[in-house]
Amino acid sequence: MEATPILRRPGGRSAQVQAVVRRALEELVAEQGRDKVTVPAVAERAGVSASSIYRRWGDLAGLLNETATHRLDPQRPLPDTGDLRADLTAWARELIEHLSQPRCTSLLKAASALATGRDADCLCNRRAEANTLIANRRARGDDAPLPEPRQVIDHVVAPIVFRLIFGAEPVKPSFAQQLVDELFAIVGTPPPEGRAPPVA
Amino acid sequence: MEATPILRRPGGRSAQVQAVVRRALEELVAEQGRDKVTVPAVAERAGVSASSIYRRWGDLAGLLNETATHRLDPQRPLPDTGDLRADLTAWARELIEHLSQPRCTSLLKAASALATGRDADCLCNRRAEANTLIANRRARGDDAPLPEPRQVIDHVVAPIVFRLIFGAEPVKPSFAQQLVDELFAIVGTPPPEGRAPPVA
Repeated sequence: MEATPILRRPGGRSAQVQAVVRRALEELVAEQGRDKVTVPAVAERAGVSASSIYRRWGDLAGLLNETATHRLDPQRPLPDTGDLRADLTAWARELIEHLSQPRCTSLLKAASALATGRDADCLCNRRAEANTLIANRRARGDDAPLPEPRQVIDHVVAPIVFRLIFGAEPVKPSFAQQLVDELFAIVGTPPPEGRAPPVA
Repeated sequence: MEATPILRRPGGRSAQVQAVVRRALEELVAEQGRDKVTVPAVAERAGVSASSIYRRWGDLAGLLNETATHRLDPQRPLPDTGDLRADLTAWARELIEHLSQPRCTSLLKAASALATGRDADCLCNRRAEANTLIANRRARGDDAPLPEPRQVIDHVVAPIVFRLIFGAEPVKPSFAQQLVDELFAIVGTPPPEGRAPPVA
């Protein structure tokens, strides 16, 4: 098959081709294991040129990482309840539920082995979202102490991803609430009445 | 060469054989890349039997992980200044300085790809150390609110490892201080006078 240019705009042919490439990657990882998968093999299975994959995703690490997290599309609507704590909790819970799927955890681990030189998707996309959630809150005129995006990454996203990769226990969705409570404790805001503080 | 039983006790012949195996692993990773390395290849290079490696390290993931972190020997003396904040900061700084070495970061990434089913060394050894540091402090009769070992992992170790794996920027040793200050803010203890709180 001839090289198929893949555009970055969503929808239409580009989105279809991306879906075919991601499915080819997932199939090859399932059939042959992560170690055996290469960009040319994915291209052959998907019926596209390897160069179109390199152009869109950079390298195998980029493709693995983006496939692990693409259902967390950076363009998707984010929670916006007017309560940053509730928004961040819902958002962190979605992250846990998505990345806990064995297929996604497996791709995340594979991507971590190959990560190099630039911020991985699971870092930069999540940081952009944390920025948006916090900016939404500020736009409503809230001048209370709010966490910084950097703190959302370090104290909410990092523990979730670290446990998914290195821990033996499943990561429960309720972990989202605990981490967000601890995040707000850092900036000096206790949890709402009726809920215990993060530390008994 | 015949199979060489490797004992778990430190020192002597066992320690020498372990050092040979780790060096063989590091050489093969440097020469051939992480994806190509197998336990039998490491065994051949080290002049030991593959079964002795499986017996000591379980699998390739275990060997990679332990080689990445073995200089953080769980038996080494831990900081014990009488000030838990200072102890944890020195300990986290050591973690950053060690794992930031390109050789160690590379092994850590390789281990993350293969991690499965049980707590990895970088998780369980660090949790044991956090336990010790906190228990030392309790043994001195301190009844102030102290962080739990679980919180040390989630809010100090996880952000360091997450950034080393997925981030583009180097992780600076001063990040240790920032994370430990944020950890203590979670349990309600502000940083010492003269230092800014974690959030301006």
